[in-house]
Amino acid sequence: MKTDTDYMQLALDLAASAKGNTNPNPVVGAVLVKNGVIVGTGLHRKAGEPHAEVHAFNMAGHHAEGATLYVTLEPCSHYGKTPPCANLVKESKVSRVVVATMDPNPSVAGRGIQIIRDAGIEVEVGLLEKEARKLNERFIHNMLTNRPFVTSKFAMTLDGKIATHTGHSKWITSDEARLKVHELRNEVDGILVGIGTVLADNPALTTRLPNQQGKNPTRIILDSELKIPLTAQVTDTSVAPTIVVCGKNADPAKITQLKEKGIQIVQVSNQDGLNLEEMLDELYKLGITDLLVEGGAEINASFLKAKLINKFLVYIAPKLIGGRNSKSPITGLDVDTMDEALDLEFEKIEQIGVDLLVTAYPKSGE
Amino acid sequence: MKTDTDYMQLALDLAASAKGNTNPNPVVGAVLVKNGVIVGTGLHRKAGEPHAEVHAFNMAGHHAEGATLYVTLEPCSHYGKTPPCANLVKESKVSRVVVATMDPNPSVAGRGIQIIRDAGIEVEVGLLEKEARKLNERFIHNMLTNRPFVTSKFAMTLDGKIATHTGHSKWITSDEARLKVHELRNEVDGILVGIGTVLADNPALTTRLPNQQGKNPTRIILDSELKIPLTAQVTDTSVAPTIVVCGKNADPAKITQLKEKGIQIVQVSNQDGLNLEEMLDELYKLGITDLLVEGGAEINASFLKAKLINKFLVYIAPKLIGGRNSKSPITGLDVDTMDEALDLEFEKIEQIGVDLLVTAYPKSGE
Repeated sequence: MKTDTDYMQLALDLAASAKGNTNPNPVVGAVLVKNGVIVGTGLHRKAGEPHAEVHAFNMAGHHAEGATLYVTLEPCSHYGKTPPCANLVKESKVSRVVVATMDPNPSVAGRGIQIIRDAGIEVEVGLLEKEARKLNERFIHNMLTNRPFVTSKFAMTLDGKIATHTGHSKWITSDEARLKVHELRNEVDGILVGIGTVLADNPALTTRLPNQQGKNPTRIILDSELKIPLTAQVTDTSVAPTIVVCGKNADPAKITQLKEKGIQIVQVSNQDGLNLEEMLDELYKLGITDLLVEGGAEINASFLKAKLINKFLVYIAPKLIGGRNSKSPITGLDVDTMDEALDLEFEKIEQIGVDLLVTAYPKSGE
Repeated sequence: MKTDTDYMQLALDLAASAKGNTNPNPVVGAVLVKNGVIVGTGLHRKAGEPHAEVHAFNMAGHHAEGATLYVTLEPCSHYGKTPPCANLVKESKVSRVVVATMDPNPSVAGRGIQIIRDAGIEVEVGLLEKEARKLNERFIHNMLTNRPFVTSKFAMTLDGKIATHTGHSKWITSDEARLKVHELRNEVDGILVGIGTVLADNPALTTRLPNQQGKNPTRIILDSELKIPLTAQVTDTSVAPTIVVCGKNADPAKITQLKEKGIQIVQVSNQDGLNLEEMLDELYKLGITDLLVEGGAEINASFLKAKLINKFLVYIAPKLIGGRNSKSPITGLDVDTMDEALDLEFEKIEQIGVDLLVTAYPKSGE
């Protein structure tokens, strides 16, 4: 005998399968169940395509009447690229609706549920809510802040080093872990590094998956004084879009040269480093809903200082390199005592090949 | 229906319960089974007390005849503090003996099994051998090298730091993790730190468990030039024994002062640092069979360089401190490229309170 939780879990699994494909929209899954039989399933596959509920009702046809709808996010109440799903639910004659979590979008925020309740349909909210909110953490953050969701990713040895004293870091982690990083790049809109990383490693910052699938995120380079060489791999915008973030007083001639290569320029104020809040506001306007910060150590520190990192993905390799001048993942913070440390919560520990992947979040209130 | 593996697992569990209490002896468990009924169980509790087999046969009495003996380590063949168990097994009229692993002790090493086989009793060797060897990793290392088994333990933040730039480190880890460290101290014979740690923190290096149980390990201080103050907590030998390791040319007057406090002195040659191999040889002669290295960073590096660490226990706290001058767990190594890194194998990842505990071993051949 399947329970409400089982069906909601199925809806969450359907939603999760589209993660990274629906930006800027949330991922959503829907399941319709009548007399213990699943009569409709659906998920939102991509922005502009039908919502999860639409697919589920299309599949169910007249079987929707008297059924229970399980949906991972409150049905929308506004006319966007598609008509409001709340109206569809109202007209479907379902007898009950179970919603995992409310839509944080200020233009929905309870209105969808209200439309359905006003039609006399029973609505329950909050089943597997924590899981549903985690699944849409990027979207929820976007809605509440109008900024991209920022994930910091770094890879270190078991003694906390990201490179030797010579700067050598190829490779800290195993093939399996590096493949997973490319899967992550495929999921995000933007990948950010500092100019130091560009000058040192000249990376392409593209998504390289074995079957050539995957989309490239927009490369975002923090480069206050526009030191970027016009020969850097990331300046080739035929491969993927590139945004260079610089100070307001950056050299106009260099800006023109970069723009001629198809690179977008974002200029922000520059006091003790580029203003990252301003940058995130601008990046969100340019359609970046989630941002993967891949370093280096000074960039990590700047984001941390400004408390702008929403999630940490830390790969730990079964290696030791030691060294007085080997490189640490985060520099530039000035913490004197342990009680000033930034507190995190470990969410998940996975073994990826021979490496560990630790997923952590800033502790609430940090 | 219980299998051979089930009974051997029980014998291993019995053995494991005495871990830390049997030094310098191994831990051993024994189970006697007749017609599917356990007729005897035993474990070696403490050096000088009866071996596991003796307890099991005492319990079984005449039921041992025709039974199967499951024993985690080859029965001994030599007259030590107790008569050889192989003779006891021979006379017991058991019909079958299952041994997890051979005794690495050169004065046994197959002779015990031979005595039993010569008596016409069927002997199988190798069931759960890997687990049995892991359980006695300390004893096996002792037998093969005549040196203590060395475990390096350190605690760091998720960005690989063991202290802030001011040296502040109280506390990196949670109460639960620190309690577990005291349980570990209770299991080992010796705990080693460098003089730098004594001068900076003046630790007692004692075992502090909530119920006042637990034994204190011998404190071992690496102090080539005898900088140790006579007021340091570790010089109080009424609390626990202390060994100070210094160079051969150390100040004889200071040596006399330390000896007057009941401190043992171990003098080893001193070229580019104290000769750690020589030190381990001497410590083993003094009865130290397992040694917990608790730092600091230079000590870890010296042991690593000499490839003398057998096991790593790394606590990782959900904290970030960053910093250009904050402290890393291992310094003093001079690795230029990643392929020179010391390769490890992760054995186990545990959550201890909010912290992670990573157990790792040097990869075979490293």
